[in-house]
Amino acid sequence: MNFLEERILKDGQVRPGNVVKVDSFLNHQLDVGLLDEVGKAFYEKFKDAGITKIVTVEASGIAIAVPTARYFGVPVLFAKKAKSKNLDGDLYTAKVMSFTYGQEYTVTLSKKYLNSSDTVLLVDDFLAVGKALQGLISICDQAGAKVGGIGIAIEKSFQEGGKLLREAGYPLYSLARIASIDDGKISFVQE
Amino acid sequence: MNFLEERILKDGQVRPGNVVKVDSFLNHQLDVGLLDEVGKAFYEKFKDAGITKIVTVEASGIAIAVPTARYFGVPVLFAKKAKSKNLDGDLYTAKVMSFTYGQEYTVTLSKKYLNSSDTVLLVDDFLAVGKALQGLISICDQAGAKVGGIGIAIEKSFQEGGKLLREAGYPLYSLARIASIDDGKISFVQE
Repeated sequence: MNFLEERILKDGQVRPGNVVKVDSFLNHQLDVGLLDEVGKAFYEKFKDAGITKIVTVEASGIAIAVPTARYFGVPVLFAKKAKSKNLDGDLYTAKVMSFTYGQEYTVTLSKKYLNSSDTVLLVDDFLAVGKALQGLISICDQAGAKVGGIGIAIEKSFQEGGKLLREAGYPLYSLARIASIDDGKISFVQE
Repeated sequence: MNFLEERILKDGQVRPGNVVKVDSFLNHQLDVGLLDEVGKAFYEKFKDAGITKIVTVEASGIAIAVPTARYFGVPVLFAKKAKSKNLDGDLYTAKVMSFTYGQEYTVTLSKKYLNSSDTVLLVDDFLAVGKALQGLISICDQAGAKVGGIGIAIEKSFQEGGKLLREAGYPLYSLARIASIDDGKISFVQE
């Protein structure tokens, strides 16, 4: 078991509907030492992939993207979920159906900062059905940027997102892969 | 002029309505080396304030809070702007009128993670009229937590937020204080 799996068993909580709450260290309160370890693990995995940008979507993805980008020595680029006065000019957009919030939203990213010379590492805290990631992949496709890797903290492997991405050939690395949640007990995929 | 003021003059762009766009390094694309310097500056300023938590609001505040928290060796806690399945139980809430988005929203923070034993450093990327910060201060008041400091990257000193907070006695430290924007030219407060 790695450091993140151990932490999930120690501090994660299971809620009805296979919800795993990790808000004490990953997506509300943040353990920045743990986030640093996550970033380091992504770097070890993808350091030879020629990554030029770390791309994520607001909000909790930013907490993982920032320490990851420190290891790679490249910028973060985070897609926004709402129309903002802070973004103008030409935008890449993709529609995303949210599992957490139960509604559709649009992610946007400024065309200025991503183009066909980029090789991107996509990172996020959770992967379940994978809709948010598919939105980011669509944006990379629009930009002509290469997806050099996908780094996920927690994958719910009993949902289809990870399977679909692996079948499509994306280099997906999930630190903690939850195989099942039975009676409140979390089991991980044994690799 | 400090490193952030220099960077604003170099890469910031002025838009109609006194909007300063810093999306190439601070709130869309992120220069993580610069963010690290911001965190270090906040640490130098408030290292003796007994800080136990770095508190911000999603999304771009997270990018500043994470490197700041590394220097202090304490957790980040970020308030959420929407109702999420990821938060349950008792919540502190505060209503905030957004300058950027032109609408009211509610910020929420779980009661589990903030209480009267905490001394908080509030951080954010921008301070203009100060509504987001007042929401975070209200949440600290509800928790009985002490506001030990406020660290801001860019303050628009020609708007009232900073003045009101200083008059109310809060220890506010803004790295770049914009005094005026005339004809697209940015001038900083001389300290």
